[in-house]
Amino acid sequence: MAATAEHTARERERDAMRRAIALAARGIGSTSPNPVVGCVVLDASGRVAGEGWHRRAGGPHAEVHALAAAGEAARGGTALVTLEPCDHTGRTGPCTRALIDAGVARVVYAVADPTPDARGGAATLAAAGVDVEGGLLADEAAEVNEAWLTSVRLGRPHVRWKYAATLDGRIAAADGTSRWITSGEARADVHRLRAGADAVLVGSGTARTDDPHLAVRGVPGAVQPLRVVADTEAAAVKPGARVLDGAAPTLVAVAADLPGPATAHLEGYAEVLRVPRAARGRGLDVTALLAALYERGVRSVLLEGGPTLAGAFAAARAVDRVTAYLAPVLLGAGPAALGDAGITTIADALRLEVTGTERLGPDLRVDAVPAASRPAHPAPQTQES
Amino acid sequence: MAATAEHTARERERDAMRRAIALAARGIGSTSPNPVVGCVVLDASGRVAGEGWHRRAGGPHAEVHALAAAGEAARGGTALVTLEPCDHTGRTGPCTRALIDAGVARVVYAVADPTPDARGGAATLAAAGVDVEGGLLADEAAEVNEAWLTSVRLGRPHVRWKYAATLDGRIAAADGTSRWITSGEARADVHRLRAGADAVLVGSGTARTDDPHLAVRGVPGAVQPLRVVADTEAAAVKPGARVLDGAAPTLVAVAADLPGPATAHLEGYAEVLRVPRAARGRGLDVTALLAALYERGVRSVLLEGGPTLAGAFAAARAVDRVTAYLAPVLLGAGPAALGDAGITTIADALRLEVTGTERLGPDLRVDAVPAASRPAHPAPQTQES
Repeated sequence: MAATAEHTARERERDAMRRAIALAARGIGSTSPNPVVGCVVLDASGRVAGEGWHRRAGGPHAEVHALAAAGEAARGGTALVTLEPCDHTGRTGPCTRALIDAGVARVVYAVADPTPDARGGAATLAAAGVDVEGGLLADEAAEVNEAWLTSVRLGRPHVRWKYAATLDGRIAAADGTSRWITSGEARADVHRLRAGADAVLVGSGTARTDDPHLAVRGVPGAVQPLRVVADTEAAAVKPGARVLDGAAPTLVAVAADLPGPATAHLEGYAEVLRVPRAARGRGLDVTALLAALYERGVRSVLLEGGPTLAGAFAAARAVDRVTAYLAPVLLGAGPAALGDAGITTIADALRLEVTGTERLGPDLRVDAVPAASRPAHPAPQTQES
Repeated sequence: MAATAEHTARERERDAMRRAIALAARGIGSTSPNPVVGCVVLDASGRVAGEGWHRRAGGPHAEVHALAAAGEAARGGTALVTLEPCDHTGRTGPCTRALIDAGVARVVYAVADPTPDARGGAATLAAAGVDVEGGLLADEAAEVNEAWLTSVRLGRPHVRWKYAATLDGRIAAADGTSRWITSGEARADVHRLRAGADAVLVGSGTARTDDPHLAVRGVPGAVQPLRVVADTEAAAVKPGARVLDGAAPTLVAVAADLPGPATAHLEGYAEVLRVPRAARGRGLDVTALLAALYERGVRSVLLEGGPTLAGAFAAARAVDRVTAYLAPVLLGAGPAALGDAGITTIADALRLEVTGTERLGPDLRVDAVPAASRPAHPAPQTQES
């Protein structure tokens, strides 16, 4: 019986952590530069007493929301938190203090806080006599915080490269026509990706060819991402461009050496960011661009192409996730999804690992991440083709 | 109770038909120019009494195998057959006669026989007092006979275009290196496709670049397909080419107007087939090549590329199924999977329908068929990007 009761308590904690992860996910796209966090408070008997998630930077942390909802029921209870509770006073007080004050007896968190400022929460709680455990459902919790954890590790925003192509890898026909290669379902999914990103980025080629709007539509409650155009010569985003409307903030990144008047047409419509040119090739320095965005609080970038910009990011090894929308269409001609990434031979290919596939109406969505640690295929012993 | 007994009898028939379809599939790749057929005979009480499948052209039909296995137990029983029993005397006697002689009381078939010579079996059986039903699990049964049914409908072999590419649609790096883009699992799957095809076809580009062997390896019991190289100028398949070894029969298709001595180096190593040149562009006339293969009994072709030949087939609308092996690899440069197919604008794109996706080790396999009847996406009312 004791074993069964323990088992049940553990199952309750796992269920509550799963719920906390789902709550955390609601914050994706609106909490930067903070992580997303979810929290569920169980009372002393194991019943759910309160829930909360971090909604926006500057607002209360997940634990504070959940503790407020639980009230006195938190006393002697357990808090399940997707990220180690913070131990520092920022715009809000430390969550460790809130948990201790509420009389919580046990805290279970999924992922340890990697930031120098905020970490140490677990030790503070333990020192106050709270039973603390870390690591429960850590992989799942890390997944919802993929962008933020990557940005902490690398000191630059997480970059997801999204592209829509035919099964034979074309993003447009030979004459440049491309509307619509993918289906409405796939295009709606892209709006969800935009809603989850802090910034959406395109290059001058896309700005010139498509005059894209880049704002989120059709996602209730979405926070508009920063629209960013890498327009090195300040020549692609023209007066009246759709990206210059008021639907979302816009930033146009231009070469640092451009004369001031070159960007006069953007004044009042977009912020202009001056970035060094790439040391080799055309365009801007990818690392410098990302650093400038990070500086502005951007923790996740949705890179929407085109091929030239995507190639520059791939060459800089600044792609952390690829989301490909593949339409069951063949063209046999037309521009490829990915342009020159400095890869000339198969041994230097950028190898990925597929993390998921999904059917979206008639199309396929394929998600993949760099297989940094995956060895190349071993050399074959015999000819096989 | 009566309703239940009927229901049970029906379920038994469905189970038996599923089994018959699985048996039929064992013949894929070895029965051409015949279809694959499976048969299960139930005795009068509904128990399985005999099974059989058509193994090779000239050998006994599925029904004959199954009736032989059932013996006297077939009397008063039911035969489940994946294709309408034949009514003609070819190298073997008509199956209708065999079923009637065996005293079978009921025949259920999945797909009606579309060939002028062999059809009419259902009527003959009914005239002899046999209870006949058609259409049970017709879709599933048609699937295992996809190649044969297509070849009957079109009067040319069924063509499956298979390619292996990176996620960005490249079949090799900029310097031409391509070993290995896809994994061992994907390459093993290609050998299964070869084993299921009557012929494997490549163009002169592939012959020159890869010196492919094209035979089946690692598939126990496989019948070797005919290896076919479309070598218009008889210049790509050189003496000593791997495709000229004795592992499987080989056919080299060359332009009909080549002088005789141009193919002297192939004599004794491969059959030479003379085919008219394409009316437009380079290479051979695809329709004429397929007609010549059909004439030789080839009912299914596995088109293994390269991009030029695949483009010609796509342009001729002679691709009935696409099987793409996509490796989670990015290159950003290098030849595309599909070359010029005469498509210059998006409205003329070759639209497909995905029929299945599968993970093969690290890679994805995507199967698709032409969406002949699928309308293009309706014109959008608003700009969406």
